Amino acid sequence: MENKEAKQPVELRVDVGERSYPIWIGNGLLDRLGEASRQAGIPAGSPVLVITDEHVGRRFLHRAEQSLHAAGYRAASLTVPSGEQSKSLAVFEDCVRAALEAGCDRMSTIVALGGGVVGDLAGFVAASYMRGIRFIQVPTTILAHDSSVGGKVAVNHPLAKNIIGAFHQPEFVLYDTATLQSLPDRDVRSGLAEMVKHGLIWDAGFVDWCAANAGKLLAKDEETLAYGLAQGCAVKTAVVAQDERENGLRAILNLGHTIGHALEAVAGYGELLHGEAIAIGMVGSARLAEQMGAAADVAVRTEALMRQFGLPVSIPAGYSTEAILDAMMHDKKFKEGRTVFVLPTAIGKVEVRHDVPIEWVRNIIEELKGETT
Amino acid sequence: MENKEAKQPVELRVDVGERSYPIWIGNGLLDRLGEASRQAGIPAGSPVLVITDEHVGRRFLHRAEQSLHAAGYRAASLTVPSGEQSKSLAVFEDCVRAALEAGCDRMSTIVALGGGVVGDLAGFVAASYMRGIRFIQVPTTILAHDSSVGGKVAVNHPLAKNIIGAFHQPEFVLYDTATLQSLPDRDVRSGLAEMVKHGLIWDAGFVDWCAANAGKLLAKDEETLAYGLAQGCAVKTAVVAQDERENGLRAILNLGHTIGHALEAVAGYGELLHGEAIAIGMVGSARLAEQMGAAADVAVRTEALMRQFGLPVSIPAGYSTEAILDAMMHDKKFKEGRTVFVLPTAIGKVEVRHDVPIEWVRNIIEELKGETT
Repeated sequence: MENKEAKQPVELRVDVGERSYPIWIGNGLLDRLGEASRQAGIPAGSPVLVITDEHVGRRFLHRAEQSLHAAGYRAASLTVPSGEQSKSLAVFEDCVRAALEAGCDRMSTIVALGGGVVGDLAGFVAASYMRGIRFIQVPTTILAHDSSVGGKVAVNHPLAKNIIGAFHQPEFVLYDTATLQSLPDRDVRSGLAEMVKHGLIWDAGFVDWCAANAGKLLAKDEETLAYGLAQGCAVKTAVVAQDERENGLRAILNLGHTIGHALEAVAGYGELLHGEAIAIGMVGSARLAEQMGAAADVAVRTEALMRQFGLPVSIPAGYSTEAILDAMMHDKKFKEGRTVFVLPTAIGKVEVRHDVPIEWVRNIIEELKGETT
Repeated sequence: MENKEAKQPVELRVDVGERSYPIWIGNGLLDRLGEASRQAGIPAGSPVLVITDEHVGRRFLHRAEQSLHAAGYRAASLTVPSGEQSKSLAVFEDCVRAALEAGCDRMSTIVALGGGVVGDLAGFVAASYMRGIRFIQVPTTILAHDSSVGGKVAVNHPLAKNIIGAFHQPEFVLYDTATLQSLPDRDVRSGLAEMVKHGLIWDAGFVDWCAANAGKLLAKDEETLAYGLAQGCAVKTAVVAQDERENGLRAILNLGHTIGHALEAVAGYGELLHGEAIAIGMVGSARLAEQMGAAADVAVRTEALMRQFGLPVSIPAGYSTEAILDAMMHDKKFKEGRTVFVLPTAIGKVEVRHDVPIEWVRNIIEELKGETT
């Protein structure tokens, strides 16, 4: 985008062939959504549908719509309840109804204004409405720097998270760092867990930077956040560019997620924030890695990092080990009778392993349960 | 496949780049489903889920499962109610549950055993389960020679047919002509409407053949059916190969569908069979084409063909013109305020038009309502 502001937004590109797209990160970008849409070639002849949730919509929907209107778009909106329960087929059906009632056609665009839940839900609407229409990601959480990039969209089934979905790349991602200022501290910490994860799988220097800047990040210093988000997105885009459809490399993004997803499933979605669940998962993976002989001395460092960001490093009381193991078996990463683990081999490096004995997993879970933070 | 039978199955290929796949048509192929799966490289390490409906399942599920088991596959199944109402999100959710309970993972395969409803439903399950797994089409109706080829899969929203879907190509299509013997006559006629449509859009010689062989086709003569299905599929594959994602040419496959889909929506899905609805639509399109000056003398021939196959050529009593027009506006083919019509320019040739005046459409609908067959 042209530099209308004092500060030029950061621009990254996600290279997925002919569907490549930009990520813009900067202060005040929400008010430039319409301009960015024009620049990206979003057609103005067909309605645009903004999908948001109650918390985000109250604060930001009006500005998003105003910016779209000012750029000549007809924009309708749907506000869904906040929280993971909106990633249901029932709410998905509501979204399709809203698209139909707004008169959305094949040239229409869905805008996801919100965090990961809204992005995943609205993205799957865009992926499947009329067999696929355009969409735009406008993430408003730190956590969503992960989910808004890479094209994985999904809703939940009562029996399994993210089991119904698609690969559907957005036209662009527009990240207004000012929207992050209203985030509750717990969500900030949860989001930073994914940021640190991107360092742990790919870039030891970025891990050092995260550790050195933990205070500023936790205090939501906007420039520090913008840099960290850009680095996190850069890791994600580098991985996605090499493996858009998760045939291999992309699996490394799931560091901490084998245990993390299972914890979320057992907790009842939403009780444990996603970043909290994967923080515990990353600690577990690091310990498994040491046991497997894959790495030395990553567990202590991983745990210290999580503590530094105020993230949990043990499983809260009351979780059943068998329920956690059972949830793992229902995860997409469970393939041909084996659970897939991403294990660190050093800080900034991981490998995908299919040979972690289930007994060792059980022991690690027991160990993580036995501790108090 | 190897020739184990007296008659070699017909083999066609659908050329969609790296996802190209074969269509096999012949007598007794259902019992060779397992063998065909092996040959197509379907992995045997993960469960296969067969989705069928009550009518088809009662007759053929056992044979399909037996063939899969004999070839070393673990096969589970789900039988859904027969009829269009199974293309709902509720039944879709049941299918995902069945896949989870069967332990389906990313290497699993969904088999669609049935007509167009089962193919569309099971295909969308395969397209979205874990963001896309393999699937196989085993069509058991004549109508499904159209829907099983080309990768368009979808379910319905209460407000619009096929509005939620994907492009997802099968691994192969296996057409056992023996399964067509149990089809009710009305379904035979409905299916032949799509076969004739394939001639009308692409191949005047095939239209002549259909007319000359109407008696044998209606009597379900197996060799005649096999030839007609292969020709119909060949037209479909030629069109799909040129335009997999419906950006242009593929729209010609919708001859008769603008009016046809609207009639189905107004009728309540299932009251009017799909082939019956598009038969009326094809007559309407031919008359519109003559009025638009696009063609001369196609309307009489089209109507005569439909009558020859025992298909309706007028709108049944009790349908509201405004309701039909309104349904058109909710169709996917309605784009930027204009309805898309496929109009014949001669027998075997069509063009896509965006400029048909709505008043002319209204008049044609009134005219089609005023007649008695």
